[in-house]
Amino acid sequence: MDCIFCKIAKGEISSYKVYEDSKTLAFLDIAPVNNGHILVIPKKHYKNIEDISEEELYVAIKTVKKIGKALKKSLNILGYNVNINNNPIAGQIIPHIHFHIIPRYKNDGLKLWKQGKYKNKEIEKIQNKIQKYFNNK
Amino acid sequence: MDCIFCKIAKGEISSYKVYEDSKTLAFLDIAPVNNGHILVIPKKHYKNIEDISEEELYVAIKTVKKIGKALKKSLNILGYNVNINNNPIAGQIIPHIHFHIIPRYKNDGLKLWKQGKYKNKEIEKIQNKIQKYFNNK
Repeated sequence: MDCIFCKIAKGEISSYKVYEDSKTLAFLDIAPVNNGHILVIPKKHYKNIEDISEEELYVAIKTVKKIGKALKKSLNILGYNVNINNNPIAGQIIPHIHFHIIPRYKNDGLKLWKQGKYKNKEIEKIQNKIQKYFNNK
Repeated sequence: MDCIFCKIAKGEISSYKVYEDSKTLAFLDIAPVNNGHILVIPKKHYKNIEDISEEELYVAIKTVKKIGKALKKSLNILGYNVNINNNPIAGQIIPHIHFHIIPRYKNDGLKLWKQGKYKNKEIEKIQNKIQKYFNNK
């Protein structure tokens, strides 16, 4: 398969690796949002959250937890954002599930997306749609 | 404890709930980034990723996976972002761990953070710091 993250996982393409175990790999994103921006991937190829098994997702999130702790200690930061951009419409470029861990620094200028408001009964309508899905499963 | 998400989990404060099981709850954020913006929380109080146990994190991410699938089907979307803002510096306002699931729509205007570049040997220096942490554990 011609997937760059599979190749990184197999060591066929080098990466700035910071952590590895039998099932996951963590390496520095070479185009960081902030210094120390890490990508965590399962070594096995899964496209996205829908695609990955619960067990493999567990293994991956455990690595995310480990890396977060490591970043706090080693880079002396107070927090970070964890992001999965799930599917191309959400900004996923490489179709191999990956967690972004983005260290945050004082006055780094990063802004979260702006939150809005629902109009009228819009929120109930959306709630109904989602509830209906679960009720019909 | 005076935590709004604990109160929501206990039903002491109402929410636009879309899914619940014995350990987790999913409800609509009333100040959405996009329509259908969901928050997934463990019912038990944990401050952040450092604080929560691996097992409880697993239970929570399983619910995230379920909700993502539900949003795709019920709101007819093609993808979403999953975000944890971990600690106040990362934009965490309520100190009870929560996953944001943000549905994405065509031309919704949301932009991901801009990625940059490392200067000189900066990336190796950061890699060394993080590797040192793991080597000294």
